[in-house]
Amino acid sequence: MSEKVQIKEVGPRDGLQNESSFVNTEDKISWINQLTESGLSYIEISSFVHPKWVPALADAKEVAKGIKRKKEVTYAALVPNMKGLEGALETNIDEISIFMSASETHNRKNINKSIDETFTVLQEVVKEGERAGKSVRGYLSTVFGCPYEGMVETEQVLKVAHTLFDMGIEELSLGDTIGVANPKQVQDVLGHLVANLPKDKLAMHFHDTRGTALANVLASLQAGITTFDSACGGLGGCPYAPGASGNVSTEDLLYMLHGMGIETGVEEDKLLHASLFIEEKLGKNLPSRVLQARKGEESH
Amino acid sequence: MSEKVQIKEVGPRDGLQNESSFVNTEDKISWINQLTESGLSYIEISSFVHPKWVPALADAKEVAKGIKRKKEVTYAALVPNMKGLEGALETNIDEISIFMSASETHNRKNINKSIDETFTVLQEVVKEGERAGKSVRGYLSTVFGCPYEGMVETEQVLKVAHTLFDMGIEELSLGDTIGVANPKQVQDVLGHLVANLPKDKLAMHFHDTRGTALANVLASLQAGITTFDSACGGLGGCPYAPGASGNVSTEDLLYMLHGMGIETGVEEDKLLHASLFIEEKLGKNLPSRVLQARKGEESH
Repeated sequence: MSEKVQIKEVGPRDGLQNESSFVNTEDKISWINQLTESGLSYIEISSFVHPKWVPALADAKEVAKGIKRKKEVTYAALVPNMKGLEGALETNIDEISIFMSASETHNRKNINKSIDETFTVLQEVVKEGERAGKSVRGYLSTVFGCPYEGMVETEQVLKVAHTLFDMGIEELSLGDTIGVANPKQVQDVLGHLVANLPKDKLAMHFHDTRGTALANVLASLQAGITTFDSACGGLGGCPYAPGASGNVSTEDLLYMLHGMGIETGVEEDKLLHASLFIEEKLGKNLPSRVLQARKGEESH
Repeated sequence: MSEKVQIKEVGPRDGLQNESSFVNTEDKISWINQLTESGLSYIEISSFVHPKWVPALADAKEVAKGIKRKKEVTYAALVPNMKGLEGALETNIDEISIFMSASETHNRKNINKSIDETFTVLQEVVKEGERAGKSVRGYLSTVFGCPYEGMVETEQVLKVAHTLFDMGIEELSLGDTIGVANPKQVQDVLGHLVANLPKDKLAMHFHDTRGTALANVLASLQAGITTFDSACGGLGGCPYAPGASGNVSTEDLLYMLHGMGIETGVEEDKLLHASLFIEEKLGKNLPSRVLQARKGEESH
């Protein structure tokens, strides 16, 4: 296992995008500045998607322009198409993220296009993003299961992954979008993928919906993966399940990695400070185990 | 990794013992009967400790006598000393559990005796329990960390474990009492322990206080462990931290194990039914990820 891991904080994008309560632009900016201060080297700050689809992130431009940027940190934003790219480029964001699903049905329900049609759109985004001097990251959803199709064939994942790398993406984040993966499956899928794709260009993106996220991280570490997405506080749950968990929590991930002697460059206390801040703004307990345990210790 | 795992349900004892709200005896009995119906082969139903110390379990005798027992299931109860043993034997419970800590300070704070003094008490309990035809299980607390002493030496764990096995216990459950363990530590500690103790007589008892419990289970499976304690709903949190997690949740554990193709004999739906029942009786959301996700799915 590697002695260093890079954490990519996706809370401000993947964490907030499903939240029913809107966090003020000013608070988002303050929160992202706190995340910067924690020592994170990568923060996905928002999504340049039409506000009709993701109203919670309608202020992407103001957020991107308002945050205090440190040059050691990569600030990224999600972009679905050329229009989103134009918005993102106006803010001079460091990196562009594109996304699609490994399963046809989820891709269609989410993007309203077939996988092949999505390739055409994304090809242009990647080309124009690179022409503007931006690196491009890809997100692949439903790698470990699709809410409509169930299991997704690893061959299908590999096919889509190859096409995205051929387009020119720098890294591919493999998403357990609905939080169904288990460590055996992670071992099996990664065993196949790392044999066919550049291991150091793969990141894992786990949701903790069924409690398996950190076990899946462990299985990924054992397969040689060194980049993980996570969200401050474990943000990103389903709006229909108030107690349900979302992305693997950054502080839980830090607790495990640091305990294992793996460096991340992130300070746990400062990250927790950012979690407490956004928890207060959202007005509800966030799913992170470490966060809740820490609050208990402090009140005791 | 083994293709079969035995789950030992400790919810009715370790789960409830710190709960501030008292669950009615009748409800406890109904709940334990539901747990029996789920296919569990082992249930720890209560603790014969002085009610002054654990008021939530003051009805141990009534519970033990009231439940519907299946002969394929082992019903166990925790016993601190000879007085507790007498109470337990009156109910003709199948198995006796004894407990102590690997760290001197925690043992003293919890039992009010030194480790050596505790050995003397437990020796008699084991001898008398066995004379009455009961098997005896040992719990060893603070194996992965002590709230007073911090790290606990594996040599110390091994020393206490050897003494307990020499007394005649059938199995030793190694507890991460305060939920601080990480998978690397589990690998290191188990590497040492399984080289010196019978692997098939070791069980792991993880708390999910910091989210690492299932990752620690995975590390234990990889070390050849095949018995795990867990609590329905993830009961067993700290009374001072309302959102904090307790024992690793039985349903989360089942989800992971079954997904990995490991058999347990337990039916997930029936176990969830029991969790929903006790959740309603306690009147608060329990920490299990699977439970909360399932409630979200059903309300959607």
